[in-house]
Amino acid sequence: MRIVMPLFDRFTALDVVGPYEVLRFLPDAEIVFAAATPGPVRDGAGRLTLTAEAAFAEIASGDLLLVPGGPGTRGLVHDDALLGWIRRLHGTTTWTTSVCTGSLLLAAAGLLDGLPATTHWNAADLLESFGASYTPERVVFQGKIVTAAGVSSGIDMALSLVELLTDRTTAEAVQLAIEYDPRPPFDAGSPDKAPREARDLLARSLRR
Amino acid sequence: MRIVMPLFDRFTALDVVGPYEVLRFLPDAEIVFAAATPGPVRDGAGRLTLTAEAAFAEIASGDLLLVPGGPGTRGLVHDDALLGWIRRLHGTTTWTTSVCTGSLLLAAAGLLDGLPATTHWNAADLLESFGASYTPERVVFQGKIVTAAGVSSGIDMALSLVELLTDRTTAEAVQLAIEYDPRPPFDAGSPDKAPREARDLLARSLRR
Repeated sequence: MRIVMPLFDRFTALDVVGPYEVLRFLPDAEIVFAAATPGPVRDGAGRLTLTAEAAFAEIASGDLLLVPGGPGTRGLVHDDALLGWIRRLHGTTTWTTSVCTGSLLLAAAGLLDGLPATTHWNAADLLESFGASYTPERVVFQGKIVTAAGVSSGIDMALSLVELLTDRTTAEAVQLAIEYDPRPPFDAGSPDKAPREARDLLARSLRR
Repeated sequence: MRIVMPLFDRFTALDVVGPYEVLRFLPDAEIVFAAATPGPVRDGAGRLTLTAEAAFAEIASGDLLLVPGGPGTRGLVHDDALLGWIRRLHGTTTWTTSVCTGSLLLAAAGLLDGLPATTHWNAADLLESFGASYTPERVVFQGKIVTAAGVSSGIDMALSLVELLTDRTTAEAVQLAIEYDPRPPFDAGSPDKAPREARDLLARSLRR
């Protein structure tokens, strides 16, 4: 199956690489990184460069579309060429998926009108402004559209997709292969769990 | 602080990008991807290309060294140029770290003789063959050397490093920023938890 992952300037690297490291185990996975122009694409933190090997124009179909998020999404919600490409791909997919603020692009493309979806907790209002109904779950299934919450949630989403595309034992084998037995040293991974001081610090001073 | 992440042919992408997406939030982080030769470096699954912007020879020091794993490590445990570079960097670091089979390279460089360390569960015997004492923990602190278990464990390690390099509130803010509130759909992330069928399938047929 062909898995298409669009890249764009200022994407978030873990949104892409988390699911990549899971989906690559699918027995017949053919993963394609695509961009407006093939070549190096810089991430949102400005220090990491992934290579896109195909142009959007070369990719007319895909079995699984995974749209990552990142600061770059804010400038792309009015990019008619990209949004049209997402709509066309969606017409060919078995699964259309996003991680983090990638769902803003699905919504801006008109795929989430009135539908439940998730995104990074900090972009909930923005997602709703594009017509989706924000749902504060880690992964939201809505027909063939699957949206995941912020950044690291793409790993959880991808494991569920592997189960749906194969079977539970295969998905468990992939979880074991990447030793995904998470032990966060703190319990601050969502706004309702993080201490106020951490929320304030993030709002005030950390790079987004 | 300068964070140095060596890349090599057939590295595992998530070993690098998990910690990257955490450590990049350090207020003064300068992250450098280095390789024997600057330029594109292909991952172990053969479908993802990250760019190394510096040559090992250009990097004489670093505050934090993070050595990723991947199938490529097996061929590098006798690469004297790389191992010598790791030893030299280690002489300058505050923290020397690895994810997954990256610890094989630390061990082959002589940094783990008789010391507790971890690696991907499947490489425990190999790690011991290089003189380390395999410890089945997710993250092992040993002096200034920190080793993490398979692939996804680098995220947990990196959050602990952020706490040590700044403070707990900052680390919690980073956890919130990447919405790291993991919800694996299965509980198969370690050999003692995975069902026998999943372990057998992984051993038999999935790409490593």
